[in-house]
Amino acid sequence: MGSKIKNKSDSINKAWGGRFSRSPHKLLEEINSSIEFDQRLYLEDIRASKVHAAMLGKQKIVSSGDVKKIIEGLDLILLEMGSGKFIFRRDLEDIHMNIEFRLRELIGDIAGHLHTARSRNDQVAVDFKMWVRNSIDVIDQLIKSFQSTLINNAEKHAESIMPGFTHMQIAQPVTLGHHLLAYVEMLGRDRERLRDCRKRLNESPLGVAALGGTSFPIDRDYTSTHLDFDRPSTNSIDTVSDRDFALEYLSAISILSIHLSRFAEEYVLWCTSQFGYVKVGDGFSTGSSIMPQKRNPDAAELVRAKTGRIIGALSNLLVVMKGLPMSYGKDMQEDKEPVFQVHDTITLLLETLNGMLIETAFDKERMASDAKKGFSTATDLADWLTKNIGVPFRESHHITGQIVKLAEKNKTELAALSLAQLKSIDSRIDKTVYDVLDVNKAVKSRTSFGGTAPKNVIDSISAARKRFLD
Amino acid sequence: MGSKIKNKSDSINKAWGGRFSRSPHKLLEEINSSIEFDQRLYLEDIRASKVHAAMLGKQKIVSSGDVKKIIEGLDLILLEMGSGKFIFRRDLEDIHMNIEFRLRELIGDIAGHLHTARSRNDQVAVDFKMWVRNSIDVIDQLIKSFQSTLINNAEKHAESIMPGFTHMQIAQPVTLGHHLLAYVEMLGRDRERLRDCRKRLNESPLGVAALGGTSFPIDRDYTSTHLDFDRPSTNSIDTVSDRDFALEYLSAISILSIHLSRFAEEYVLWCTSQFGYVKVGDGFSTGSSIMPQKRNPDAAELVRAKTGRIIGALSNLLVVMKGLPMSYGKDMQEDKEPVFQVHDTITLLLETLNGMLIETAFDKERMASDAKKGFSTATDLADWLTKNIGVPFRESHHITGQIVKLAEKNKTELAALSLAQLKSIDSRIDKTVYDVLDVNKAVKSRTSFGGTAPKNVIDSISAARKRFLD
Amino acid sequence: MGSKIKNKSDSINKAWGGRFSRSPHKLLEEINSSIEFDQRLYLEDIRASKVHAAMLGKQKIVSSGDVKKIIEGLDLILLEMGSGKFIFRRDLEDIHMNIEFRLRELIGDIAGHLHTARSRNDQVAVDFKMWVRNSIDVIDQLIKSFQSTLINNAEKHAESIMPGFTHMQIAQPVTLGHHLLAYVEMLGRDRERLRDCRKRLNESPLGVAALGGTSFPIDRDYTSTHLDFDRPSTNSIDTVSDRDFALEYLSAISILSIHLSRFAEEYVLWCTSQFGYVKVGDGFSTGSSIMPQKRNPDAAELVRAKTGRIIGALSNLLVVMKGLPMSYGKDMQEDKEPVFQVHDTITLLLETLNGMLIETAFDKERMASDAKKGFSTATDLADWLTKNIGVPFRESHHITGQIVKLAEKNKTELAALSLAQLKSIDSRIDKTVYDVLDVNKAVKSRTSFGGTAPKNVIDSISAARKRFLD
Amino acid sequence: MGSKIKNKSDSINKAWGGRFSRSPHKLLEEINSSIEFDQRLYLEDIRASKVHAAMLGKQKIVSSGDVKKIIEGLDLILLEMGSGKFIFRRDLEDIHMNIEFRLRELIGDIAGHLHTARSRNDQVAVDFKMWVRNSIDVIDQLIKSFQSTLINNAEKHAESIMPGFTHMQIAQPVTLGHHLLAYVEMLGRDRERLRDCRKRLNESPLGVAALGGTSFPIDRDYTSTHLDFDRPSTNSIDTVSDRDFALEYLSAISILSIHLSRFAEEYVLWCTSQFGYVKVGDGFSTGSSIMPQKRNPDAAELVRAKTGRIIGALSNLLVVMKGLPMSYGKDMQEDKEPVFQVHDTITLLLETLNGMLIETAFDKERMASDAKKGFSTATDLADWLTKNIGVPFRESHHITGQIVKLAEKNKTELAALSLAQLKSIDSRIDKTVYDVLDVNKAVKSRTSFGGTAPKNVIDSISAARKRFLD
Repeated sequence: MGSKIKNKSDSINKAWGGRFSRSPHKLLEEINSSIEFDQRLYLEDIRASKVHAAMLGKQKIVSSGDVKKIIEGLDLILLEMGSGKFIFRRDLEDIHMNIEFRLRELIGDIAGHLHTARSRNDQVAVDFKMWVRNSIDVIDQLIKSFQSTLINNAEKHAESIMPGFTHMQIAQPVTLGHHLLAYVEMLGRDRERLRDCRKRLNESPLGVAALGGTSFPIDRDYTSTHLDFDRPSTNSIDTVSDRDFALEYLSAISILSIHLSRFAEEYVLWCTSQFGYVKVGDGFSTGSSIMPQKRNPDAAELVRAKTGRIIGALSNLLVVMKGLPMSYGKDMQEDKEPVFQVHDTITLLLETLNGMLIETAFDKERMASDAKKGFSTATDLADWLTKNIGVPFRESHHITGQIVKLAEKNKTELAALSLAQLKSIDSRIDKTVYDVLDVNKAVKSRTSFGGTAPKNVIDSISAARKRFLD
Repeated sequence: MGSKIKNKSDSINKAWGGRFSRSPHKLLEEINSSIEFDQRLYLEDIRASKVHAAMLGKQKIVSSGDVKKIIEGLDLILLEMGSGKFIFRRDLEDIHMNIEFRLRELIGDIAGHLHTARSRNDQVAVDFKMWVRNSIDVIDQLIKSFQSTLINNAEKHAESIMPGFTHMQIAQPVTLGHHLLAYVEMLGRDRERLRDCRKRLNESPLGVAALGGTSFPIDRDYTSTHLDFDRPSTNSIDTVSDRDFALEYLSAISILSIHLSRFAEEYVLWCTSQFGYVKVGDGFSTGSSIMPQKRNPDAAELVRAKTGRIIGALSNLLVVMKGLPMSYGKDMQEDKEPVFQVHDTITLLLETLNGMLIETAFDKERMASDAKKGFSTATDLADWLTKNIGVPFRESHHITGQIVKLAEKNKTELAALSLAQLKSIDSRIDKTVYDVLDVNKAVKSRTSFGGTAPKNVIDSISAARKRFLD
Repeated sequence: MGSKIKNKSDSINKAWGGRFSRSPHKLLEEINSSIEFDQRLYLEDIRASKVHAAMLGKQKIVSSGDVKKIIEGLDLILLEMGSGKFIFRRDLEDIHMNIEFRLRELIGDIAGHLHTARSRNDQVAVDFKMWVRNSIDVIDQLIKSFQSTLINNAEKHAESIMPGFTHMQIAQPVTLGHHLLAYVEMLGRDRERLRDCRKRLNESPLGVAALGGTSFPIDRDYTSTHLDFDRPSTNSIDTVSDRDFALEYLSAISILSIHLSRFAEEYVLWCTSQFGYVKVGDGFSTGSSIMPQKRNPDAAELVRAKTGRIIGALSNLLVVMKGLPMSYGKDMQEDKEPVFQVHDTITLLLETLNGMLIETAFDKERMASDAKKGFSTATDLADWLTKNIGVPFRESHHITGQIVKLAEKNKTELAALSLAQLKSIDSRIDKTVYDVLDVNKAVKSRTSFGGTAPKNVIDSISAARKRFLD
Repeated sequence: MGSKIKNKSDSINKAWGGRFSRSPHKLLEEINSSIEFDQRLYLEDIRASKVHAAMLGKQKIVSSGDVKKIIEGLDLILLEMGSGKFIFRRDLEDIHMNIEFRLRELIGDIAGHLHTARSRNDQVAVDFKMWVRNSIDVIDQLIKSFQSTLINNAEKHAESIMPGFTHMQIAQPVTLGHHLLAYVEMLGRDRERLRDCRKRLNESPLGVAALGGTSFPIDRDYTSTHLDFDRPSTNSIDTVSDRDFALEYLSAISILSIHLSRFAEEYVLWCTSQFGYVKVGDGFSTGSSIMPQKRNPDAAELVRAKTGRIIGALSNLLVVMKGLPMSYGKDMQEDKEPVFQVHDTITLLLETLNGMLIETAFDKERMASDAKKGFSTATDLADWLTKNIGVPFRESHHITGQIVKLAEKNKTELAALSLAQLKSIDSRIDKTVYDVLDVNKAVKSRTSFGGTAPKNVIDSISAARKRFLD
């Protein structure tokens, strides 16, 4: 869409100037104008206006001939905007007045009928809700694609052993497939959260007018239905004052961005030569202007960092809305930029991570090798003691701690301790213990629901496909 | 509950000390210990432990005799804690180890069976989810009470005229009942948001153990059902790493607190002598230590201000969780204090506003008088022009603007202009216009769905009672 | 400056591509490129490059002939950029590579000497510090202008009585001049805070190269001096990792914006018909698209609201920087947009408030009339009791409270109570008490240093002019 | 200090109750009371009251006999509070009224003289400023201690080679001493920032009374001097409304906490078995309740995480202060808890990091070994090409990129390539190049000011001791 904006105007404001004796100060125009950003609402604004006009016709509030001309005019403006030919004017403040003014140029004074039983207060609410609704739908699809890539990788690595970490320390062996599916779950909740937000916002503001409703015999059910809302909103004052949907949208995406930042953090970590678990393709690596050897994971770093602007946008709108008295206040114009910026950011982050993961190769050998380190099967040893010698787990834990200390002193892994060494700690230990000290067996044994055993992972993959990709 | 905390310990940590050769540094103990705040989880911790023990018995992992003793011991601890007799020990770090250690004192080494197939990672997740779930239920009831008080006041004032404001300027007359119902709607969305959060969190973490599941033949469905969860969680790594539910809870309550801050702001405003719309009872007024005449709306100011700590708590946890690699990290221990603080704050705010509203008297005369000011029926005049002369609304708006200018010049209200004066602006105006210039008639005419007409308000009240109070 | 950005490139990256076998993925290019915003650094980048080149010449690291050509080339690019003719290329990532690439086009391969002993890590740090330094200077002047307007108004209203508020309740009479000077003080601290930030940032990063310094015999004092820094920075790793200056800048401006929001809030409040203390000129008023009579204080509302985006920007960068390991990480590229946005916002807010205040008329009569309400001289009555009857202040306070209660019951002000009525509360009261019940006398009596007496205000004005405007 | 708080009271409020006919609602008492937290101001409150009383005596406003009794009474209360015997009462709201009430119990009605020419508005401001001032002094000393420990470690490791990182990728070899000194610089700026905050806050509020000054002939210079302020504040309205000092304090500590979080992040990273650069002593390690082998860096994780609550506290107070009209509002009571919490948190973080670093052993061999990886001397190679063959750096960079590619293909490091292999890329290369490919020589060559050469590090250490520890 075109973004040409004409700045100057000598005329008194066309929308509300009847009472004023001079044109606005240029500073007022600069701080007040929203056309730079709210032009993004043009599709929604024209669609809502067409439905509003049709309703005015149906209700005999405006003649059908006039309605026809209004709708034709709006369609023409849609074409002009779609093709980038429309010249936006800053002195006309916002998308609503830019369109209405152009409509008057095209069809004359009958354009003035369009604003019957409507205020910019309900108009902007309906436009913005439709925009956010659409943004949710777009994001839902992008999350789904990323889930799909994660699931595909999980399938490929259902049996690939890697170290599971707690406190960034090697804790227990898990499978890479299981690890990747953890993100599929997080993203599943994110989609649900956004769907709940969508469900809640889907009440049509159109027809509440400035703040108190109208005496024109309008049909709010008609406009609600034709704009794909579930129902018209219940209270006119609430409707023009409410920006919950934007706050909830920003909250849901903040939580989503936390998940992406955690993935990105692991990615950056795994790209270090110390970890070396992934090698990102040239398409997603960058170099250095001074150090010729560098291969930096910039994309992942930026995904991690851009969480900041999403959280910042949420803070922004919370601060704006705090303590605002009813009903509409100009402060609320500050709702759009954070939402637009967050939409642009999160869609880019999702696409980038998805593209990056597609081009990522995991180093299975490196991961499997690390999985053996750090006495990662100590829990299995403790479990063995409880199952086989019958001591309470707490005691098993204590015995195992001593065995680990011995291994550490001998600079060896658990599986490399001799039976004599093991018996020196607890004489009841026998050679069957060696079975559980092997990382592959350890992983395979974790078959409790939700556990990391490859068989579980395979089941989870097909369940995840049904839950998330159908 | 008792909050005695014993600080000193010379012993090596009982939970995990097997491998360590000295006790923790006092600074580590100080920064690491969570017993000061996580003792609030004691009810949940004991309940979950009892169900876990019962499951271990059912699955023949622990003998039924041992299970019986464990459960009896836990019940005893519950009594000790409930009566404030329990001595918490900081060197035992957290609520989990305090309870387990006491259990060992009471029933001996078989207490050590309780931690079979369990880690503190899943234990704290299950405790905390149950705590948050209960907090949501408590808050839901408090919101409901406040809605009830709002609705009662709306009923009393279904026909009380007040000025509706936009930009804090008098815009159109509305009814106080309609204004109060706007808050009922906001609070209705808040309750829905919290219910969605509750629905989403209600998956049982118990049994995912440290991060990878367990090889013991546990029954996660059993523990899930007996702890009132909808199902066990799907992925063990996600389960111990997830704090979405706390973030979503904090987000939902931040939005709720925004609503309360808006109510409080209006309250403070309406208490000024310039507005004078409400007089708060002595029970909710405070005085000044230097100015003997003051009657300050401190409670409302504090409700407004405490939004800050709720938003701060949300920022806090978002910062904590950003960029944390899988799975559990100690950072996540910082999840509890913001949640506890937010619970305590929001319940106090809801109770305070409810109590304050119950003791509040609205000055109907003052409101009604203000409603006539500021040319508040100008929209009605414009609508009349469109309906009766048939000019497009935009032209009506312009004509009305000129009439307002005339009234302003004559320092009078619209209804006080003579017909001659009106005709001097537009000769097509006739005397029937005076009907719509009366605020009472104006309010009654706004019968569009969601509009402010008293008849609508009355309908909305009975609908609201059904939707929110049944 | 021109902002044409060319998007496509098929070539391998020119700055660091030597080792790569394919060009970056378009998503990487999109997320990674900073030229859309960092082109704002072009003046600083060229200036720093010229000084760097001159230093390389002086130190015989590059021949003087080559240096001359480099500087001439850079000057040419400066002209191209200044006139909007320069075509920025997204595939060249950032302002540094866009300039270097163009330099090569203009002067050939000797352009390659410019990057000797330099990395983009120190280059961007020096550019950005110079930009922030300049922003501080611009903001300082704008604050000074606003202080000047406030002081002029304070002078005009040094004796205008208005109610002083606490808790938004009328507390004691003060003068409008005194009230306006409160903002002059706040803004004075803001300027100091920004100056301290400037002082602290003013260490030259140039020459620390990528992160460890360089083996070329460079002269960092030379570049520091010629770029108006106080000294070169001390530690190379810190230098490329540090964004304190941006955080401190954002903090200082957040506090400044809090002050502006408080002024704006009062302005909005005083524009209500209930207060009616100010009438803003047509140049700073806006109207309504539906309500023809409205005159909205949009500019003040937007000043209040835009605090949100400044606080949001601070949150943003704090989140970005938290927990970043040394040294430069790509995350730090996210430092610029919040700073640029905050600069644009705060300069607009300061200009707007200044312009608005210049066109504002205060309604002295309305203020003076309100100052008499609310028993505003009750403190003076209590002080009188202490001074004249000698009772401890606490007792005076109590007696005064009873007198206020009596006045309230009689629906009158304090000065209108009869001596008999006063004596009915405390018989020691005599008629000299009426002196202090008059608001003008009350105001004049508050001559303690910093107090509101007109004489103090006049002294404060001349002191403020010396402290802030010289 | 004791923290016994008595909850119940049936009496009307003692401080301001004269006009009220009933006692406060229990919810008001609960939300309004601040004694739970502001009792931490008792030292400051008593000190300020004593100085205020002395001034009242000196000015003959109160008799010297009464002043003597007041001061003796206050000293007695100081003892009671210091020894934990004082019973705080919630119904007395805050520390000021608790003390004043007790004073009346001790010395009778003449206690009522103390509040002459004073309000709680200036009283709380003076107490809180003194508290923050002291907090800054405490924090300054703790930072200094941590700097000292860092410098001592830097000295020990002035020549220890480690990899320098950018993007968490190995970039160039540096010394560990240099790396540690980067933090010394950051902390030096933090101390400066806090000192600037202290300088700015150090104006005495005492004597501005409620908001407008007083008619009593007080001496504000006397109280200012005796409370160690630089001067009395200039404007009474500003003085009671200002919380800049708390915001600036929270900002400065937020930036400090960012630095600590970066150190902690590196620490956690370096504790992983993949990095293995540090081994933290048992005193600062924790274990796991299920995994007996774990040795977790909990303290570092918590330092990293607790940044969240500091940033959250800053957000909190910014939200509270935004848009508050003049002068004092009850909202401002919300200033203390975030500041107290931040003080407690940051002092714990500084002590913990300091203690942890003292018990930390660095694995020099592991670091030195890593420093050779990742072609870390590629920049030196490029510099050699420019210095020795005379090609522009950009070309050297490109040639080096191709050499790195060759080494990578051959799975070897740069120094292990044969001269023939090097010449195959550029025939002008000769064997002297091998000198710069050695990490030790590379590090030693970086002698530019601020660079990482050991000799620079040693100079920096003695300079740092002078700048920061004297």
